Amino acid sequence: MLDQDHFSSYAMGHWLRSDSSGRQVRSAVTGETLGVLGGVPDVAAMRDYAKSHGGPALRALNFHDRARMLKALALHLKAHRKALYDLSFLTGATLADSQIDIDGGIGTLLVYASKGRREMPEGFVLPDGELEVLSRDGSFLGQHVLTPRQGISLQINAFNFPVWGMLEKLAPSLLAGVPSLVKPASDTGYLTQAVVRLIADSGILPDGALQLIMGATGDLLDCLDAQDTVGFTGSAATAMALRSRPSLLQNAVRFTSEQDSLNGSVLGPDIEPGSAEFDLFITEVHREMTTKAGQKCTAIRRIMVPEAHLQAVTAALSERLAATKIGHPAQKETQMGALVSQAQREDVRGKLQLLAGECDVVFGDAQHCVVSGADAKEGAFMSPVLLNCPDPDAAKTVHEIEAFGPVSTVMAYRDVPHAISLLNKGGGSLVASVITHDPQVARQVVLGAGAFHGRLYFNDRVSQAESTGHGAPLPHMVHGGPGRAGGSEELGGLRGVKHFMQRSAIQGSPDMLSAITGIWVTGAAEHVGPAHPFTRSFDALQIGETLHTAAREVTLADIEHFAEFTGDRFYAHMDAEAAKANPFFPDRVAHGYLLLSFAAGLFVEPSPGPVLANTGLNALSFQKPVVAGDCISVQLTVKRKTRRTEAYGEVRWHVALRNQDRDLVAEYELLTMNSYGETKGA
Amino acid sequence: MLDQDHFSSYAMGHWLRSDSSGRQVRSAVTGETLGVLGGVPDVAAMRDYAKSHGGPALRALNFHDRARMLKALALHLKAHRKALYDLSFLTGATLADSQIDIDGGIGTLLVYASKGRREMPEGFVLPDGELEVLSRDGSFLGQHVLTPRQGISLQINAFNFPVWGMLEKLAPSLLAGVPSLVKPASDTGYLTQAVVRLIADSGILPDGALQLIMGATGDLLDCLDAQDTVGFTGSAATAMALRSRPSLLQNAVRFTSEQDSLNGSVLGPDIEPGSAEFDLFITEVHREMTTKAGQKCTAIRRIMVPEAHLQAVTAALSERLAATKIGHPAQKETQMGALVSQAQREDVRGKLQLLAGECDVVFGDAQHCVVSGADAKEGAFMSPVLLNCPDPDAAKTVHEIEAFGPVSTVMAYRDVPHAISLLNKGGGSLVASVITHDPQVARQVVLGAGAFHGRLYFNDRVSQAESTGHGAPLPHMVHGGPGRAGGSEELGGLRGVKHFMQRSAIQGSPDMLSAITGIWVTGAAEHVGPAHPFTRSFDALQIGETLHTAAREVTLADIEHFAEFTGDRFYAHMDAEAAKANPFFPDRVAHGYLLLSFAAGLFVEPSPGPVLANTGLNALSFQKPVVAGDCISVQLTVKRKTRRTEAYGEVRWHVALRNQDRDLVAEYELLTMNSYGETKGA
Repeated sequence: MLDQDHFSSYAMGHWLRSDSSGRQVRSAVTGETLGVLGGVPDVAAMRDYAKSHGGPALRALNFHDRARMLKALALHLKAHRKALYDLSFLTGATLADSQIDIDGGIGTLLVYASKGRREMPEGFVLPDGELEVLSRDGSFLGQHVLTPRQGISLQINAFNFPVWGMLEKLAPSLLAGVPSLVKPASDTGYLTQAVVRLIADSGILPDGALQLIMGATGDLLDCLDAQDTVGFTGSAATAMALRSRPSLLQNAVRFTSEQDSLNGSVLGPDIEPGSAEFDLFITEVHREMTTKAGQKCTAIRRIMVPEAHLQAVTAALSERLAATKIGHPAQKETQMGALVSQAQREDVRGKLQLLAGECDVVFGDAQHCVVSGADAKEGAFMSPVLLNCPDPDAAKTVHEIEAFGPVSTVMAYRDVPHAISLLNKGGGSLVASVITHDPQVARQVVLGAGAFHGRLYFNDRVSQAESTGHGAPLPHMVHGGPGRAGGSEELGGLRGVKHFMQRSAIQGSPDMLSAITGIWVTGAAEHVGPAHPFTRSFDALQIGETLHTAAREVTLADIEHFAEFTGDRFYAHMDAEAAKANPFFPDRVAHGYLLLSFAAGLFVEPSPGPVLANTGLNALSFQKPVVAGDCISVQLTVKRKTRRTEAYGEVRWHVALRNQDRDLVAEYELLTMNSYGETKGA
Repeated sequence: MLDQDHFSSYAMGHWLRSDSSGRQVRSAVTGETLGVLGGVPDVAAMRDYAKSHGGPALRALNFHDRARMLKALALHLKAHRKALYDLSFLTGATLADSQIDIDGGIGTLLVYASKGRREMPEGFVLPDGELEVLSRDGSFLGQHVLTPRQGISLQINAFNFPVWGMLEKLAPSLLAGVPSLVKPASDTGYLTQAVVRLIADSGILPDGALQLIMGATGDLLDCLDAQDTVGFTGSAATAMALRSRPSLLQNAVRFTSEQDSLNGSVLGPDIEPGSAEFDLFITEVHREMTTKAGQKCTAIRRIMVPEAHLQAVTAALSERLAATKIGHPAQKETQMGALVSQAQREDVRGKLQLLAGECDVVFGDAQHCVVSGADAKEGAFMSPVLLNCPDPDAAKTVHEIEAFGPVSTVMAYRDVPHAISLLNKGGGSLVASVITHDPQVARQVVLGAGAFHGRLYFNDRVSQAESTGHGAPLPHMVHGGPGRAGGSEELGGLRGVKHFMQRSAIQGSPDMLSAITGIWVTGAAEHVGPAHPFTRSFDALQIGETLHTAAREVTLADIEHFAEFTGDRFYAHMDAEAAKANPFFPDRVAHGYLLLSFAAGLFVEPSPGPVLANTGLNALSFQKPVVAGDCISVQLTVKRKTRRTEAYGEVRWHVALRNQDRDLVAEYELLTMNSYGETKGA
């Protein structure tokens, strides 16, 4: 029995002790009652609170502030994870399983914290894509931007990853600036609750940014509008019930679903038994069958192998499964723990019955297994079961029914198009994998199967040491898939953040766009500052602050000297006849790098000052050749500023080189690191 | 009466003459019967045909092939547009209206043709976003890619833009590689049909890439699966009926809707009567009320003006509306034509009744108007109607009900937050506009209203000459909006193309990713070619072909000489003590541009050959400082090739500069133009 506090909802900044009117929650390992779920909190008031407190407070922070908040959260949870592991054993998870859930969730926070700092601006509006020049003279421009949606993120999560499942939705949602209402699954919600309690106690999040609903959501779904987002993870049946709610459809509520997915894994046609890739394949399949006792949305349900190797794969897998130690999840030697509940085990057994018409059992007995350190009857333990499907083209259930436990089916394929056809028969999946050492097989699979799978994972001897596993969704990559998998996407770096934001196409003059994005664009106001911009600190520099340099003539002697000095004697610089025969050049022209170098000579202020280093350059485009006798000058404009460390930030400058006729010769973005203060040097 | 051929469906490569079992279609101008719609073609067979013929044929073309096809289509339609204008008059559209529809549609094809060539690879897989390094040693990487969905694009269009409405969905769909079934609205489908006939006669599209359903779609929606996409434009009620179909929800069919939208336009608080912006505001609102007789999804329905200027705006608008010539659309002097049908006019009159409870009519009489050159009783003519809403905070209908005709409502606001609140009361719109000369007002509106509007349009004296109009969706910018507007997106450049594709997260070794995308990535196989790569033609160069140069020592004399020659005497190059005080440098360091220049000297082959010019450089990053005595060498690798003209294509090279310890000193992407053949020079 856990303290009944573990079943409290967190609403409007307070813990609501459960009224114990709901159903009992039991230990996966012993079957004992852990506690009782309560009634429905005032969910409409919780939504209002999120909108009136959490949303405005989050939107008052910029993206970098929110990213730092995620990092602080991650570090706080990391410091307390031991207590979480202990609770996690009760769900049937081994320590390795719990690390995927708990450390994986913390890792997701950290990746988003890092991406928020590196890939998002230090501001409130996220530019999306490139500037679109919508006019001949550049006076009317377009830029897509994203702003936080002004509703809530309602997260309805599955039982299998009570920590990661919350954090993988919470991290992008918080970074976007949207408050969350989290509804964990009943069976394992106490672990989610423990994390929410740690977060609440930490005081890191603003009031109203995170609330927790332990138990039913009542009529919350019918209160939602187009500013709200519902993110569901669970069964296709529940997803269908949710997504077909008239209120959600009528209000165009954004709805995502990660649901049933009959993920496949293919042993490449190039792989022979005994090879590194063959062993890798067996290892990956075995891991997906046994991790979390197979209760993973990304687990391998269908194993596709070349006809010739069907026996070898079946034998190797059966051997590996037979050696798998099932037992109390807290025991060190345990390799596979319990399913989440006896009801879940019954569900899996029922699905096996349905599969039995088309598949033969080649390993395991769903009714019996040897369990170490726990009672096989009271706990929801189950042997892994390997099936064989002799006619996968005619079979239906194996491509349609997911036994959400340690169950997978081997099937033989003839050639790559056949393997692709079998993969796609699943009707859309979260992930398909291919163990192959032949890049052309990978290419063929992407072209044939890409449209059906949210992730395609290739592995071989080259990548195996560093590969992250078929079943591991990474915050960097999208998690989701078409069709049966729910037709949605989560994660995928900033894509997952944008999901909680609204994209708007902005049109207007350069000054309007600059004010909106905080990024100077060509045509926007320029002004000359009180001193050379290299003498002005990061803080002092203004967006649009511009230096116009003196002009410098480029002589034929310069060109010849530069060629001699650098060794770049390309004919367009050295040979007038040959240059004139080239479609781009009127005569001998200056080297592009000569122009860049002279440009720096024109704009650099040599003395120690706030500019610490030139760290890079982007999107250099040479627009017009420079011939001997041309005079070039530079316009250097502060385009954008981003704080990077305690001591200095990045300044992006727009650099335009023009000739004596004011024609653009080259333009690029220059990156420097500048110290914040006014003091000279470092 | 039109020839009954104008009502034929185009199915499986054949024209199916209508069986005239459907409803009569009448002229908007005279009320005469133009023809009769027919029965339902075998829509399931049409879908199968698109999947078996159109899809594979389109997917066999690369993105550039498809882009060229769009351009050819555009030029073909342009050559025949006179006949389309003539048909368009029958819909009630003036020549100016028809140009928006017909020329706008052709322009959309051209923009997509151009974006396809410029922004998409010459291949079959579209990379999305940056490479993600998922391992410490770079042996396991991630890259998102998109591949064409393997279903159909079903397009259910509105009556108001029978040409643009089809082409704005067709262009991105074809570019994506997905075949289309087009279902135009009954009232104006004959014009869509004329375009499809031109396209079919041109022979430009592969068989099965485009089919047309004149009349009902039968049970087509229930045949669709997760590979199919439905794009709907029309009323919210029809959208709701479509999107709530269980088969669409069950199969996770991708569904987009552009529907009712109560777009608002705000006269900025900074604008005084008599100013350029005041006149611009009146012009924009008048244009949106009268173009297409107000039958535009992007028309301004709600006009928000500062309290002080309510009278001035109402007077100016009324004056402009009173001077608007209503008449036969084919007459040159006509400024506003007819609504599409008498039924549509009745619908608008009915909506005006609903609005009457909260609004007063300040201009126009919905029952009477003076019509030139046509019969006001037989044609669907109607006067523009301007309403005033005295209490827009309490009002409901004005923010909820769209009279889809020449109707708009003025309302006063107190300050910018109040204007934002009124804009957002529409519950989500396609576009909101603000006429302001104050960039801070624009910024405030984006932060407060961005989440509610798919497009935010700002205009002032600076951009007015080149601005494209509040109501004009451009192919470059997303068209769509949250909530009441349908919660979807179309267009927006490549975003609209991606809508018809599936994004997949690809994970694997560098060689796998290179084979899949056709782009060399760090860690993928390199090979030394048979000769210096600058002597090898575009066609001969292989992805991964690499040049390793000799090494060159960088001396203190080089650094000093470069400083002297270029004028770049930055202290980090010239002053050891100051350099050492800088957090980035161990001592005096070489100029970044010196390194780039020496690198070129190391890799450039001087004689005339296939490399015509260095056109640019991307993503230069300086990784490690170079001090006197260091030796640098270059690795130059062919990363990606794209044909650009008949004569030459672009080669992107990965350039890595390393020091004597093999540490990376700098890396960047170099762009050159290379001729295709083996011949020397140009």
